[in-house]
Amino acid sequence: MILGIIGVGLMGGSLAMAAREAKLFAEIIGADNSEANLKTACELKIIDRALSEADLIAISDLIVLAAPVEAIKAITPRLVGAKNSAVFTDLGSVKSAIIAAIPAEIRDRYVAAHPMCGTEYSGPKAAFATLYKDRIAVLCDSEKNSLNALRKVENLFLSIGMRIVKMPARDHDRHAAFISHLPHAISYALANSVLSQEDKGSILTLAAGGFRDMSRLAKSAPSMWLDIFKQNREPLLQAFKIFTAEMASLEDDLKNGEWESLESAMKNANALHQIFN
Amino acid sequence: MILGIIGVGLMGGSLAMAAREAKLFAEIIGADNSEANLKTACELKIIDRALSEADLIAISDLIVLAAPVEAIKAITPRLVGAKNSAVFTDLGSVKSAIIAAIPAEIRDRYVAAHPMCGTEYSGPKAAFATLYKDRIAVLCDSEKNSLNALRKVENLFLSIGMRIVKMPARDHDRHAAFISHLPHAISYALANSVLSQEDKGSILTLAAGGFRDMSRLAKSAPSMWLDIFKQNREPLLQAFKIFTAEMASLEDDLKNGEWESLESAMKNANALHQIFN
Repeated sequence: MILGIIGVGLMGGSLAMAAREAKLFAEIIGADNSEANLKTACELKIIDRALSEADLIAISDLIVLAAPVEAIKAITPRLVGAKNSAVFTDLGSVKSAIIAAIPAEIRDRYVAAHPMCGTEYSGPKAAFATLYKDRIAVLCDSEKNSLNALRKVENLFLSIGMRIVKMPARDHDRHAAFISHLPHAISYALANSVLSQEDKGSILTLAAGGFRDMSRLAKSAPSMWLDIFKQNREPLLQAFKIFTAEMASLEDDLKNGEWESLESAMKNANALHQIFN
Repeated sequence: MILGIIGVGLMGGSLAMAAREAKLFAEIIGADNSEANLKTACELKIIDRALSEADLIAISDLIVLAAPVEAIKAITPRLVGAKNSAVFTDLGSVKSAIIAAIPAEIRDRYVAAHPMCGTEYSGPKAAFATLYKDRIAVLCDSEKNSLNALRKVENLFLSIGMRIVKMPARDHDRHAAFISHLPHAISYALANSVLSQEDKGSILTLAAGGFRDMSRLAKSAPSMWLDIFKQNREPLLQAFKIFTAEMASLEDDLKNGEWESLESAMKNANALHQIFN
C-alpha cells in the first residue's frame, strides 16, 4: 500500500510521520506546490520521495489532501485520475464546501475528515509525529462512503492514536465555527487591539500567561485562515453574532453597574469547569 | 524579620512558599477571613502560624495584602496600627483604586505592586512556590515611597525570582485592562457563547487546543474578577470599545467579502510573533 499526501506542511507532514511509526504503508510519498516544502520534507525524511501531484494521484492507494480548503476543492476533480481501488480523504477545516466539490464518480471512495488538532505554526519543519495522538477525527456524511473506503480511512486515523466522531458536515461546520474559527477571529482581534495602541511595547511588557494563551492563535497563517473563514462564512457569521451579543451584555453590565448580572454571567461561564477539562 | 500575609490563597500562599525558599524571614505568618483557608495553609505548612488580622498587623515587619481588590481597600486604613518601621505592599490587579485608599500617614511605607502572574485556580491548595519565578512585578507610583520601604519590597520580589518594572498607576491600569482584564472578559463571553447553544455537548466534543487556551480564563473565580472589573471600570470599558471595533471590522470584511482587508488584519496580528514570544 502506498500512502500519498498532497501538502506536506504541519498537518500532512505530521500525518506522514505518525503513519510511518504505525508501519501501515510500504511507502509514503508526497506532493506539494511549494518546491521548498517538498525538498524539506524529503531532507527530514518525512516522506520517502517527492512526486508531481499527477504522478502521486496515479500510483497511490490512499490519498490524503492536506492542503488549505480552497486548494483541496481545486484538487478533488483531478482525483478521478486515480486507481479504481484508491481511497481518498482530506484534513480540511471546513467540510460542506469540500464535499460539494467531490466528483460524483468517486464520492463513495472519498471520506471527508477533519482532525481536531493543529498548532499556530506551519510548514514541514513544524511537523511532529504526535500531533494527532489522542485527538478527535471528525468524519462527515460518511453514510455516502463505501464500507471499504470508510474502513481504510478509519484505520489510518485509529492507528495514529485518534478517536473517531461522525456527524453531518453541516453540524461539523457550525461546531467548528464556535470551537475553532471564532476563537481564531477573536485572537486576531485581541492582538490587533493591543498592536493598535501607541504604547504597545509598554503594554506587552506586562503580558503574562493569560494574554499569551489568548493571543497564540493570532500567530496562525493568514492565508490558511482567510481561506477557512471564506469557506465557512455563514456559520462563522452566526457565531460572531452570538459572541458579540455576549460581549455587549458584559459591557452593558459594566457600564450600568449591574454587578449581580455581571457576576452571574461569569458564574455561568465557570460551568465549563464541569463539562470540559 | 516577620513576613505577614493577609490572604493565604493562590497568590498569598505561593508568595509564602517562595519567600520561605528564599530564607528571607525568621517567620511567615498569615491571616485570612476564611477560617478554612487559614487552616489549610497551616496544615500545608505554607505559613508558620495563623493570627487574627489585627495581631498580624501589630507584629509584622513586612505586610503583604494578598486579598481581592475591594478587601485590600478595606484593610489599608487598619495598617496604621502597624509598627512604625513596618513596610507594606499588596498584590492587587488594579492600582489607582487601591492607592487612593492608602492612609496619608503610611503612604511612604506602602509600595503598590502587581505581580503579573496567576492561574485560573484559587485557594491555598492551588499555591505553588514557582508562581512568581521569572515573572514581572509592576511597582506603581513608587516615587511616593521612602527608599527604605522600596528596597525592602523590591528585595522581596527580586529574591523570589521576579523582574521589576515601574510605572504610573494610571498606565498600569490601562495596560492591565488590555493585557489581562479584557482577555478575561473575552474568555467569559466565548465560554457563554458555546454554553448558550442547545447542542453545547456536541460542540465541545470538538474542542481542541485552541478553544482550551481561549476558554481557560473563563474558569477564573467570578467574585475576584467582578471586583477587578468594578475597580478598573473606565480603562476596561475603553479596552472593550477598541476590541469591539476590531471584531466589527473582521465581521464586516467577512460579510462583505472584503478578503484583502481581512487578510491584511490577520497579517497585522501576526506581528505579535516578532515582538512577543
